[in-house]
Amino acid sequence: MKVGHYENTPQDRVEMAGATGCSVRKLIGAEDDAPNFAMRQFEVEPGGYTPRHHHPYEHEVFVLEGSGIVWEGNQQHSITAGDVIYVAPDEVHQFRNSGEIPLKFLCLIPNSAKDQAVTQVPECGEI
Amino acid sequence: MKVGHYENTPQDRVEMAGATGCSVRKLIGAEDDAPNFAMRQFEVEPGGYTPRHHHPYEHEVFVLEGSGIVWEGNQQHSITAGDVIYVAPDEVHQFRNSGEIPLKFLCLIPNSAKDQAVTQVPECGEI
Repeated sequence: MKVGHYENTPQDRVEMAGATGCSVRKLIGAEDDAPNFAMRQFEVEPGGYTPRHHHPYEHEVFVLEGSGIVWEGNQQHSITAGDVIYVAPDEVHQFRNSGEIPLKFLCLIPNSAKDQAVTQVPECGEI
Repeated sequence: MKVGHYENTPQDRVEMAGATGCSVRKLIGAEDDAPNFAMRQFEVEPGGYTPRHHHPYEHEVFVLEGSGIVWEGNQQHSITAGDVIYVAPDEVHQFRNSGEIPLKFLCLIPNSAKDQAVTQVPECGEI
């Protein structure tokens, strides 16, 4: 068993192309020998966003603090603390912080994501 | 994609033997065709507890509100909002609300849990 506050896990900047103002904490994962899926906590600064992309694996997301939008292809949904988002495999998606405080959420992925391709797509409104 | 507040998901009483004052919301799972793991949200009333048991699959837990303890075998850990708990396969565990408000947490399990045995064990201090 491992027990600890999420803020005690080191926070790393997300360097992935298309990400702005994003950081991540790896809360539970391969280093714990978790056999099936990994729990990460993301933080997006006001005005920041995750890459607009798709991949063959799912996301299971829970918003902890803040507010923003999630793009589902070309459709946007408002999100706020307490919201649950299921991103199915291969769906184009992007999280954006449109609020005044950090947008914090959990995002869980299967271990099989490790070897799968991530495809970045143009921002909405770009050719 | 599915987007919605967790409180809009129906809440069911946990009827499992050994559970007292527990309810669950199934936030993401088989009904969404989530291929690998399920997100559930548990609520334990003050004084309530989940069964003391073990099973061959893991839990990945994030505490949303409240406080309490988690038993790891015969050792207890205090838990509060923001704590992350990884329960490895086959570890004896139990969550108890020792606070004054509901203890709310996310608990994720692999889809393979569906067909696996859960073994209840005596409460600490019982023969």
